[in-house]
Amino acid sequence: MTEPMFDRIALVGIGLIGSSLARVIRREGLARHIAISTRSPQTLKRAEELGLGDSYSTDAKEAVRGADLVIVSVPVGSSGAVAEEIAPALRPGAILTDVGSTKGSVIAQMQPHVPADVHFIPGHPLAGTEKSGPDAGFADLFQNRWCIFTPLPDTDPAALEKLSAFWRACGSNIDTMDAAHHDKVLAIVSHLPHIIAYNIVGTADDLEAVTESEVIKYSASGFRDFTRLAASDPTMWRDVCLHNKDAILEMLARFSEDLAFLQRAIRWGDGDKLFDLFTRTRAVRRSIIEAGQEVDVPDFGRQVVAHPEKS
Amino acid sequence: MTEPMFDRIALVGIGLIGSSLARVIRREGLARHIAISTRSPQTLKRAEELGLGDSYSTDAKEAVRGADLVIVSVPVGSSGAVAEEIAPALRPGAILTDVGSTKGSVIAQMQPHVPADVHFIPGHPLAGTEKSGPDAGFADLFQNRWCIFTPLPDTDPAALEKLSAFWRACGSNIDTMDAAHHDKVLAIVSHLPHIIAYNIVGTADDLEAVTESEVIKYSASGFRDFTRLAASDPTMWRDVCLHNKDAILEMLARFSEDLAFLQRAIRWGDGDKLFDLFTRTRAVRRSIIEAGQEVDVPDFGRQVVAHPEKS
Repeated sequence: MTEPMFDRIALVGIGLIGSSLARVIRREGLARHIAISTRSPQTLKRAEELGLGDSYSTDAKEAVRGADLVIVSVPVGSSGAVAEEIAPALRPGAILTDVGSTKGSVIAQMQPHVPADVHFIPGHPLAGTEKSGPDAGFADLFQNRWCIFTPLPDTDPAALEKLSAFWRACGSNIDTMDAAHHDKVLAIVSHLPHIIAYNIVGTADDLEAVTESEVIKYSASGFRDFTRLAASDPTMWRDVCLHNKDAILEMLARFSEDLAFLQRAIRWGDGDKLFDLFTRTRAVRRSIIEAGQEVDVPDFGRQVVAHPEKS
Repeated sequence: MTEPMFDRIALVGIGLIGSSLARVIRREGLARHIAISTRSPQTLKRAEELGLGDSYSTDAKEAVRGADLVIVSVPVGSSGAVAEEIAPALRPGAILTDVGSTKGSVIAQMQPHVPADVHFIPGHPLAGTEKSGPDAGFADLFQNRWCIFTPLPDTDPAALEKLSAFWRACGSNIDTMDAAHHDKVLAIVSHLPHIIAYNIVGTADDLEAVTESEVIKYSASGFRDFTRLAASDPTMWRDVCLHNKDAILEMLARFSEDLAFLQRAIRWGDGDKLFDLFTRTRAVRRSIIEAGQEVDVPDFGRQVVAHPEKS
């Protein structure tokens, strides 16, 4: 067995991402000690029942004390308060990172609290499911997914390389970019899709002419695809909306503009415009499958799951 | 072995739906003879290579001659022309049905051509995947999905019962409703989701500030869920948009109104409104899973497909 990369990794927050990290750190032997902290005593108890770590505390300071890697996995709106709380307990030379879906806001919230002798490297693993909490995590969550770092001007290259090696050991591919670009990219690939999904499920839920039971029964004809994103953690997504406002509003404006164009084509019966768009979008999915970011089976593989013997 | 339900079933159109029907009809022994017809010689040849039927013709009249069940599975914009073409060859007493996603328009197109001694029963199996063509079909496609009939005022109850028994044998559950209600229900559960998916994929494809390769690479963070619907057959969906215009425009207006409300909540930082919506929508997915219309595994079961040994 090789040396663990870190002596003590502190996981602050043990939801879907934190608990997936705990599992892959254990499986890959990336730390001698996994210290887990979360504010909720029930969640902490559950993490302990699942055996996710080596020590458990509702006090984040206690978990991060002596850690050479600290990973904050909380809703982005809480990252400032967490940074303020743990700052005095951070060990000199430690790497501090996060997993937040917005980076400009997280940097603005956390950086002022970070001691000068701690390496703060904002990060974002692009991985998740619609489930939340410590039971939802699994060691393969990051496999072949991208982890984006948005290093600060004074980020130590050696610390960045060490954190990159950690995420690669968790299965991720690594990219770096500046925080503003990250926030714009994520607004289109993640935030807008979630907001649109929440919105359409809300619209369907509000109809009078179509009953809710009809929406449920007939959902396999398309609607159910949206319900996965719309079942994501409400606190996390409220915070994302509040903390990446500008980029999200820009993408929403573009989406609405395009939708008005499409709506007009429908109203005026312009079949060629519709056919052109519907053809172009087909190619995008093929590219995603070729890039290994989607499974190459119909219906996301639901048939295989539902009828395993008939796949 | 029990008697087949029908002597000769004619399948006019052998795409995803037609070829799935061919496979389940064969597996369940529902016909003595399966006659297949499609306009494209290449598609017909492929159907023959796959052994989907007992006879093959590019002439729909030839396929339907003598059939006691005729199922038209073509884009809804072609249903009038098909009805006109096959009408003279339909056998007295035959059941004629279709699988179109819009019903008001299909009835208006087909009914004028149907001879008085033929039972025309408009139908719509709510099943499909993003794939198209005769290779894409599979016998389980209709398993536990709903098939909706929109009978006409003079529909013969015995013929309706016979057609219902056929679809139940294909695995479907049966509902009946009037065509106008069907078109409104489908506008929200199927047509709007497809249009929104096409639209967001188009918006992402058009950005200058975010490259297409970034959209592809980072798509697992939400965007890729939309690409499945946006990879559906362009001809089919062009026709749906053109043939269910009024209901679709109504649902689009509601969706846009709700989106404006959500956008305003984001702009003004109204976290409570966001949290309320994001919580409400979560419950809808649970209901769909409980109704057996969705698989109860994270990420649509992609993990199980991608890492079968680790499920």
